Amino acid sequence: MNEMSNVLRIATPEEEWEALVDDIADGRASLHQLPAHLTAQERVEIRRAAMERRAGVRLEHMAHYSLDDERASTQHCENMIGVAQVPIGVIGPLRVHGEYVRDEELFVPLATTEGALVASANRGCRAIHAAGGATVRVDNVGMTRAPVFRTSGVVQSQEFVRWIELHEEEIRRRTEDQSRFLKLLEIKTMAMGTTVFLRFRFDAGDAMGMNMATIACSRVVEGFIEPETGVECVSLSGNYCVDKKPAAVNFLEGRGKRIHAEAVLDKHVLERVLKTSARALVEVQYRKNLLGSVAAGSMGFNAHYANILAAFFIATGQDPAQVVEGSLGVTCIESRGPESVVASIYMPDVPLAAIGGGTALATQSEALKLLGVAPDPERPGAAVMRLAEILGAAVLAGELSLMAALTSRDLARAHEHLGRGRLG
Amino acid sequence: MNEMSNVLRIATPEEEWEALVDDIADGRASLHQLPAHLTAQERVEIRRAAMERRAGVRLEHMAHYSLDDERASTQHCENMIGVAQVPIGVIGPLRVHGEYVRDEELFVPLATTEGALVASANRGCRAIHAAGGATVRVDNVGMTRAPVFRTSGVVQSQEFVRWIELHEEEIRRRTEDQSRFLKLLEIKTMAMGTTVFLRFRFDAGDAMGMNMATIACSRVVEGFIEPETGVECVSLSGNYCVDKKPAAVNFLEGRGKRIHAEAVLDKHVLERVLKTSARALVEVQYRKNLLGSVAAGSMGFNAHYANILAAFFIATGQDPAQVVEGSLGVTCIESRGPESVVASIYMPDVPLAAIGGGTALATQSEALKLLGVAPDPERPGAAVMRLAEILGAAVLAGELSLMAALTSRDLARAHEHLGRGRLG
Amino acid sequence: MNEMSNVLRIATPEEEWEALVDDIADGRASLHQLPAHLTAQERVEIRRAAMERRAGVRLEHMAHYSLDDERASTQHCENMIGVAQVPIGVIGPLRVHGEYVRDEELFVPLATTEGALVASANRGCRAIHAAGGATVRVDNVGMTRAPVFRTSGVVQSQEFVRWIELHEEEIRRRTEDQSRFLKLLEIKTMAMGTTVFLRFRFDAGDAMGMNMATIACSRVVEGFIEPETGVECVSLSGNYCVDKKPAAVNFLEGRGKRIHAEAVLDKHVLERVLKTSARALVEVQYRKNLLGSVAAGSMGFNAHYANILAAFFIATGQDPAQVVEGSLGVTCIESRGPESVVASIYMPDVPLAAIGGGTALATQSEALKLLGVAPDPERPGAAVMRLAEILGAAVLAGELSLMAALTSRDLARAHEHLGRGRLG
Amino acid sequence: MNEMSNVLRIATPEEEWEALVDDIADGRASLHQLPAHLTAQERVEIRRAAMERRAGVRLEHMAHYSLDDERASTQHCENMIGVAQVPIGVIGPLRVHGEYVRDEELFVPLATTEGALVASANRGCRAIHAAGGATVRVDNVGMTRAPVFRTSGVVQSQEFVRWIELHEEEIRRRTEDQSRFLKLLEIKTMAMGTTVFLRFRFDAGDAMGMNMATIACSRVVEGFIEPETGVECVSLSGNYCVDKKPAAVNFLEGRGKRIHAEAVLDKHVLERVLKTSARALVEVQYRKNLLGSVAAGSMGFNAHYANILAAFFIATGQDPAQVVEGSLGVTCIESRGPESVVASIYMPDVPLAAIGGGTALATQSEALKLLGVAPDPERPGAAVMRLAEILGAAVLAGELSLMAALTSRDLARAHEHLGRGRLG
Repeated sequence: MNEMSNVLRIATPEEEWEALVDDIADGRASLHQLPAHLTAQERVEIRRAAMERRAGVRLEHMAHYSLDDERASTQHCENMIGVAQVPIGVIGPLRVHGEYVRDEELFVPLATTEGALVASANRGCRAIHAAGGATVRVDNVGMTRAPVFRTSGVVQSQEFVRWIELHEEEIRRRTEDQSRFLKLLEIKTMAMGTTVFLRFRFDAGDAMGMNMATIACSRVVEGFIEPETGVECVSLSGNYCVDKKPAAVNFLEGRGKRIHAEAVLDKHVLERVLKTSARALVEVQYRKNLLGSVAAGSMGFNAHYANILAAFFIATGQDPAQVVEGSLGVTCIESRGPESVVASIYMPDVPLAAIGGGTALATQSEALKLLGVAPDPERPGAAVMRLAEILGAAVLAGELSLMAALTSRDLARAHEHLGRGRLG
Repeated sequence: MNEMSNVLRIATPEEEWEALVDDIADGRASLHQLPAHLTAQERVEIRRAAMERRAGVRLEHMAHYSLDDERASTQHCENMIGVAQVPIGVIGPLRVHGEYVRDEELFVPLATTEGALVASANRGCRAIHAAGGATVRVDNVGMTRAPVFRTSGVVQSQEFVRWIELHEEEIRRRTEDQSRFLKLLEIKTMAMGTTVFLRFRFDAGDAMGMNMATIACSRVVEGFIEPETGVECVSLSGNYCVDKKPAAVNFLEGRGKRIHAEAVLDKHVLERVLKTSARALVEVQYRKNLLGSVAAGSMGFNAHYANILAAFFIATGQDPAQVVEGSLGVTCIESRGPESVVASIYMPDVPLAAIGGGTALATQSEALKLLGVAPDPERPGAAVMRLAEILGAAVLAGELSLMAALTSRDLARAHEHLGRGRLG
Repeated sequence: MNEMSNVLRIATPEEEWEALVDDIADGRASLHQLPAHLTAQERVEIRRAAMERRAGVRLEHMAHYSLDDERASTQHCENMIGVAQVPIGVIGPLRVHGEYVRDEELFVPLATTEGALVASANRGCRAIHAAGGATVRVDNVGMTRAPVFRTSGVVQSQEFVRWIELHEEEIRRRTEDQSRFLKLLEIKTMAMGTTVFLRFRFDAGDAMGMNMATIACSRVVEGFIEPETGVECVSLSGNYCVDKKPAAVNFLEGRGKRIHAEAVLDKHVLERVLKTSARALVEVQYRKNLLGSVAAGSMGFNAHYANILAAFFIATGQDPAQVVEGSLGVTCIESRGPESVVASIYMPDVPLAAIGGGTALATQSEALKLLGVAPDPERPGAAVMRLAEILGAAVLAGELSLMAALTSRDLARAHEHLGRGRLG
Repeated sequence: MNEMSNVLRIATPEEEWEALVDDIADGRASLHQLPAHLTAQERVEIRRAAMERRAGVRLEHMAHYSLDDERASTQHCENMIGVAQVPIGVIGPLRVHGEYVRDEELFVPLATTEGALVASANRGCRAIHAAGGATVRVDNVGMTRAPVFRTSGVVQSQEFVRWIELHEEEIRRRTEDQSRFLKLLEIKTMAMGTTVFLRFRFDAGDAMGMNMATIACSRVVEGFIEPETGVECVSLSGNYCVDKKPAAVNFLEGRGKRIHAEAVLDKHVLERVLKTSARALVEVQYRKNLLGSVAAGSMGFNAHYANILAAFFIATGQDPAQVVEGSLGVTCIESRGPESVVASIYMPDVPLAAIGGGTALATQSEALKLLGVAPDPERPGAAVMRLAEILGAAVLAGELSLMAALTSRDLARAHEHLGRGRLG
């Protein structure tokens, strides 16, 4: 970037355009410092042209989009050059009995590039439908953020923890000041040696809440805790939150939404729809989901929560990095009576949003509308609870179908015939 | 679906269309059994129209795409109704010193809806650039699949394991028959009680390899192991693989690619580019990435590998559910000399593909071209190793920038000003 | 045991003795059904003689003991044949600054067969002494027991959890009825599918509390929870307690006592007593206790808590199987100023007793007296807190000495010269 | 210790004795620097008298022992003051079908202070006996030690790993030089950033092997690896071994002996001996050992391996701190036919010795003789394999009895009636 930029020497829009493209392509100009007079779309085009020039390729498909590039490039994705097109398929009708979804039949959009996934999950929906629907319950655990503090040692660590406990009300008041949708639910403390973690847990209404939580923590730490105690916060995130990493504390305490879903499948459904039997399903559950996960030292005692989650998250504008957390959990399939089973999923750690983040983007917003998810300021949090219930039923559908396929060795055949869906 | 379908009674294309839309919308017809004479595009439109009718919404943005819907709807996503548009931004120039990328400066596409992520990672690229580049090394661990078998007990389990060891060559021959790109690298056995797992590990060239591995396992199990031993395979996947779940066996043994990347940052780079210091960075590393992860019982001793991975995976057509595995790993930041640091990332479990799966789709293929990733049948595996090296450097950039931001409390400010990028 | 016993046909005490020995030795009589007129000592002797006869060996040392065999064989060890003699060594003076030990210098008995362990820990005591003592704080977490229940499914599981929350006071009343030393501190619930765990946490005064907790749970489950809810308890221990197994829930929530101990060691102490330096100690801490434990997927981020614990537990009559839990925890060693360090241990899960169990036995009771540990009904719990503080300081001594030995490669030499102490 | 010692000023043996006791009691003399002319017994007595004086207590029971105090105080326990007497009970006859124990019926000594444990395990022996015996198989995994090295970074770490692989034969030769009983089985490497672990795995014949392994590692590291590579070993133990801490690497790779034991129990045995049923046992297995351990984030999917291990280890002179490792493992109980079960235990990590360490002490040696465990130089390793087989069957007995007790709620009653055995 030491060489003089071409841009300074030129005049016409076409020349400016060419010069900017050249400068970026050659690394003389930075991607995000384009002249102020350009529109968002022009910037996207200039950057993309620079990428094409540099790499000697055509990026025509990335250029094909309908979302609002002004908004996208300022709120969602800096240095934007276009979009990734990810196919969306639907599964359903999926019958859900929840507390927010009261016996509805829904179609659920999944964005995926992995063949066989949608078809398989769709079979799971048929099985659930034939079984009378999935029963779903969701606990609103809340979003967590855990700043980490440095003390002088064991004694100060204990005093600091006690101080926090004594001032919980004041801390609540100050964090809740940030937004009428933010409620502080708990501060879990953890002290070892010279290090103290405070794991704040918030209800953030229909938002996923990670940023609201971070900002609220930042203010109360800087405005109250540090000045009052003299104990320094080393990092607003102390990895005891835990965001986007698999961790026992999330498995045990939960994070975001904790989702339970269940269906009872009789012999008829098992044989006709899932081409399996109670005995076979219970054995795969035992040897794969339980013993295999035990043998592997796994935190995911399930077949493939992550597949459904990733597709659901991309379709509905969730943060796809949080699929990591959603992969934790336990599927149970138990005999019930001679030839039936009760099957359930347990997902303790699913961050979800009905508002904010990627939910506002064009296609993602459409996907949420398709699910009837519409935040209502009068009922904060109800929209995201509805979303969580639907997700739980969809994940159950995915589990049932893959587990059944494994009992009959359909997995390899599905991949040979249908494409490349990696299923568990 | 018991009611008589409207479709049977009608004649004109418009009527047929209307009837199909109605039938699907009302749940009388299934999503995937549309008349054979329709094109892929027509099917997509009919399904989408049915969804719109059922939910009373408009899905105009999903309809806006340029990918090949014939291919997408048969190979990648059943019951297709459109696409999700995910904004792509670029970071760079990112200077990489690897064995497949030999001192190149690259721009890396990231597909994300989370504001601040691209900007932050881009700052990391600047830091790496100023530091002379990132050194990257990748171990080609290989793709794993672990069928699970049922034996009569401890004695037969041991005999079965011994039989497998004795017949490893024959098993290799039979699995490698499936494809000239598939090499069997290892069979790791695990026996407990009446259960035996065989964790097959394959080199799959430039493919991610999960499906090739599954098919090869299926054939050798059904065609050789079961008939010869009389020991039954209960499931082709025994969760000891481990696909898309966090697990110690993957952390310890690796899976896919094992990626190491490193940069040495002096005082100047730390202060000017990252607005931090060696001391501050080392302390956040210690209290957050190490102690915080220890306290949390985490498998991810890092700040946010998953963020970069998810964006990279969606942009380049990887399987986004495998972000789960990629989130495992260990960042190290150590003092080197008085005011410099050496920073590294360690990712033991990154499944990656340069061919197959989502890599063939329109925008994803463009993203790979932008990175110069082009499989060469004469050098199988070289393209995906190149991709892995680039990914390693990008993840390092993401770590450095977020860790630096945490030292200076930039995190909350970034979220307040830029949007909603959830960073770790 | 089908053959007729010799015992029935004989008369004199000597003949009876011989016949009993023969019957047991030959497997015709059971070990625990000896005639009622025999004393405890006679039974011990008969069983031992039978063992000698059967195996053709002499067990003269096992016969050498002074404990009360009546009490031992009925309260502590069925089918008693003698004792194991485990050498006890002492370390000290160990200077402790706690809340129950107020700046005392103590000698601590350790029962071990592993050479070098006592010598090494003793060096740690000298280092702590030279550093002015160890600061110790103990949190009285409490003893846990977690019965597991079977429900009909997700809905009943949630209702059951809610019922427990609503009836916590009644449950408290009923559990605390069992003993004036038992206080119910918390019921942590965990529900997945058809399974619900209730993790009861009790303060049990100076007792370790496992049995009091089990009995209290049994009564409230059978007398209140089951009859009122109709939900069946499948097992009084549901492995969510967690007793004697390493587990994340204990690491995160604590169990028994949670112990923190700390010392600040300056250059002089490090060099003279520990033959090391701040730099070297901090590096071993980093690469071994932190990175090594991370790499291993360990729950014990320390050098060898278990060594000190096992020796302390055997000497003082604790339950040695609970060494498993005590091995969890995190040692920290950080630079403080140019050439000093602050070192701490963190043990979240240490079940301990000052009364009950093995503490009442002859030598074990002496060991407790040596430490000034004497339960006082007026201050229930104070004696065991004192014991925990002493243990914490002793474990810290052990860590410091071994860590220092590792910096200077003393470990192998110690084993070559002193015997066989396996030190971490 | 600055004050002048009394010892220097006196003359008669009685006066010397008194002065030494005073000096130690007052902290003026150190515990381990007693005059050379004293016998081992005299030193033990002086130290004990000093402890009595200091604490104002009588330690008469500790003084009661028959072991060789010369040997004990120099080889096993420095600063010896006496012994801990731990009651030994026996269980049996225990019928074992192994490869080293060929259908024998054995009585097994257990040293414990926890009432009900021996009685319960003895019931398990009766069940196994009635079932025709326990089938046991042991894998001789080997003892591990993992030094940790510091490199300059990613590139040198990889080169170092490659160098080790290339020089494995030379390393083998040099480590095996140390002892004719030591065989190097494997070097497992692990590199991340600037840190490399080499996990050496050895067969150590009948010894447990930790010290032989440490010494062999020390020599090859100092004599070959460091000088040839210039890469420095930071610590001979890098916590990737893993000794006495619970860790995934041990669970997955094994350590010491890996033990499998199994029994098939029919309806008659279940009802008559264990007072339970197949159905009840399978359900407790499922909800406690599997789901409960999953919910707890446990590494021990069993009821109470640690209880039997601790008692067996103390009786037979094993290192009791290694009970930590032995607590890892998986119990399986599965229906077999309508009313029978097949039950098995799986213990991947059991360090054991038939020679060396505490096995040479008086009562411990007797316990080994009772089991017919006698090392034979012509068959190195056979004695310890025999010991492992017996242990496996004993642990299975313990599991069966406790699991059965839990089905019938016997646990609380046993504690109320028999004492304080904490069973799982």
